[in-house]
Amino acid sequence: MTDKIVYLDNNATTKIDPIVFEAMVPYFCEYYGNPSSTHEFGGKVSYAIRDARESVKDLMGASDMKEIIFTGSGSESANTAIRGVLEANKNKKHIITTKVEHPCVLNLYKYFEKQGYEVTYLGVDSEGNLDLNELSEAVTPDTALVSLMAANNETGVIFPYQRAASIVKSKNPKTKVFVDAVQAAGKIPLDVKNTDVDLMGIAGHKIHAPKGVGALYIKTGTLLPALIIGGHQERGKRAGTENVTSIVGLGVAARLAKESLNDEITRVKSLRDKLENGILSSIYNARVNGSRNNRVPNTTNIGFQYIEGELILLHMNDLGICASSGSACTSGSLEPSHVLKAMGVPFTALHGSIRFSLSRFTTSEQIDYTLKVLPDVIFKLNNISPYQKELAELKTAKK
Amino acid sequence: MTDKIVYLDNNATTKIDPIVFEAMVPYFCEYYGNPSSTHEFGGKVSYAIRDARESVKDLMGASDMKEIIFTGSGSESANTAIRGVLEANKNKKHIITTKVEHPCVLNLYKYFEKQGYEVTYLGVDSEGNLDLNELSEAVTPDTALVSLMAANNETGVIFPYQRAASIVKSKNPKTKVFVDAVQAAGKIPLDVKNTDVDLMGIAGHKIHAPKGVGALYIKTGTLLPALIIGGHQERGKRAGTENVTSIVGLGVAARLAKESLNDEITRVKSLRDKLENGILSSIYNARVNGSRNNRVPNTTNIGFQYIEGELILLHMNDLGICASSGSACTSGSLEPSHVLKAMGVPFTALHGSIRFSLSRFTTSEQIDYTLKVLPDVIFKLNNISPYQKELAELKTAKK
Repeated sequence: MTDKIVYLDNNATTKIDPIVFEAMVPYFCEYYGNPSSTHEFGGKVSYAIRDARESVKDLMGASDMKEIIFTGSGSESANTAIRGVLEANKNKKHIITTKVEHPCVLNLYKYFEKQGYEVTYLGVDSEGNLDLNELSEAVTPDTALVSLMAANNETGVIFPYQRAASIVKSKNPKTKVFVDAVQAAGKIPLDVKNTDVDLMGIAGHKIHAPKGVGALYIKTGTLLPALIIGGHQERGKRAGTENVTSIVGLGVAARLAKESLNDEITRVKSLRDKLENGILSSIYNARVNGSRNNRVPNTTNIGFQYIEGELILLHMNDLGICASSGSACTSGSLEPSHVLKAMGVPFTALHGSIRFSLSRFTTSEQIDYTLKVLPDVIFKLNNISPYQKELAELKTAKK
Repeated sequence: MTDKIVYLDNNATTKIDPIVFEAMVPYFCEYYGNPSSTHEFGGKVSYAIRDARESVKDLMGASDMKEIIFTGSGSESANTAIRGVLEANKNKKHIITTKVEHPCVLNLYKYFEKQGYEVTYLGVDSEGNLDLNELSEAVTPDTALVSLMAANNETGVIFPYQRAASIVKSKNPKTKVFVDAVQAAGKIPLDVKNTDVDLMGIAGHKIHAPKGVGALYIKTGTLLPALIIGGHQERGKRAGTENVTSIVGLGVAARLAKESLNDEITRVKSLRDKLENGILSSIYNARVNGSRNNRVPNTTNIGFQYIEGELILLHMNDLGICASSGSACTSGSLEPSHVLKAMGVPFTALHGSIRFSLSRFTTSEQIDYTLKVLPDVIFKLNNISPYQKELAELKTAKK
């Protein structure tokens, strides 16, 4: 099955790099000691964790590996950061975020709204860009936390998180800044040192490490109560026996992600552009959602106007092509994307928008195959669309 | 290195069963889809998670696999249960637990004491047994939670958690009961259905699954806010992309643990007894800590009087034998065990107590080797003990 799969859903999850897997193998059945044990057999394992921490530190551009803790997921990183900041600043009841954050993070804010917090949701323009003036104006003395993505999971649009953090601190030095870098890691260089970012989260499975492991950067000096309280692991900031194999995998994946950044912004980007340009030139009712310049190199979000995205995905699935119509966490729901709505994408394209997300494992042949078969899928669906008049107009206008 | 290792520290962590590892392998680089994705490639993965949930349900003796959620560790299971119960019952400020719980769980209670909760710590007798009358008397209308181990990690002593839960409910039907079954799973049969237990946690790495995965039983109808808020995974009770490979591993490990229970109570138990009896008959200053009847079959905790446990471990380490002087989470600290202190173990044995914990991978040859080399280690340390007079008296009394 996997031989034939054209996997263009790398923003949902990625293939574990075989090099990552190979590095993990010895820690399953051979070096299985508990890193907290005093015997040498456990101790050996703790060295592997240290190496992984160093690599994750490098990927995030932190200055000290003590600033990195390992978690069980990107969601746990976000929960640890957000819930921790609010617990440490109980007298402040204002949070700033954006309308286009990952739905999982937005769910957490809905929870805090019910707990009496005021949450400001910043909008984006039609290209998905953040207005830094709007951010600046939103910060008040009561703002405990500003939480922003580094890159959007649906459109790939990049937020200038470093400048945003500086603006926040210039308005209120005590406000903490959390950056959700889950979709940015491995796609654009990250650099938290010498910035005003206090916290940054990543997830292993978006950078060819296993699912079930993440990391959180906590700037030195940041007071952050643990979400999982118990043992002394992760310097008391996250209890529980370390997920050794996955941490080892995340370490190697982080190193490879950093090394592959050049491939990402050259080869992967050119494959993405080839796919995007090919679709735009062959399919008259296709349009790109979001900025085509200010985005990560692996993602394109394309709206196929007047047809239904779930049907497109179904047909693509039959042809062995995996893509998605939003975040995996909300898939299955027929609600249009909150990200595209926030960008003001017209209703006619909202329901037919598909995210194609590539990786370093994507081949030129896979893109050729997709470009070969996708137009027929779309034209078949165009033919059964209830919007025949509108489609005809679009076709004429494009000519 | 691992060929020569005699690993008698299975209560700290276990070797991943090669059968478990083999079952995980396809989900690393081959079936790496996101189970939340709508495409078939992701969907396949969700079936694997369902099978694992079924096996964990069977191991815990639950009646419905919807009662099982996967977590990132035993600590996360405990935090989810304990923090969730307290959040759902904010008006109740009393918690009951025992003095011999895992130190990680005790740390969580220390945190809640600082938050204004009253925590009753039940004592144990000299054999480590719980007094159910004392439990019954402690329950008040204000008791939100009773939290007990099923089996102690240091001594292996079993608490009658089912009867304890019934007693709690007869005193206050609204009090929730959490059972920490991390050390009991795979060692004694578990059965939560038709009991008054509301919540039960286990950790994968104690039953030959990987580190970094656990499970929590949540009885149908139990209101439990999520610890990690976000996506819809685990029926909204634990957000984050599923740790697919480790969940698959936990499922297989749970099935094998259930199937191996008979081996555990026969072969493993007889190896443990052989080790224990061998030590007691050859080393005059050895004594068993805790009940020799009411305990899990793989554990023996032996106090070597008048000598220092850390020194014993160091010498054993040089001989390739791994054991421990308490929980791995507190190892490195020279504080005597809170479990042994609660049992009233005399000061003279407190510092020289060693936990030997076996598994189904322990061989008869390993026990023979340990029995061959351990007496010399102890006698060497006896010779440098400052308690020569006391040791001489002990030797004479034993003859």
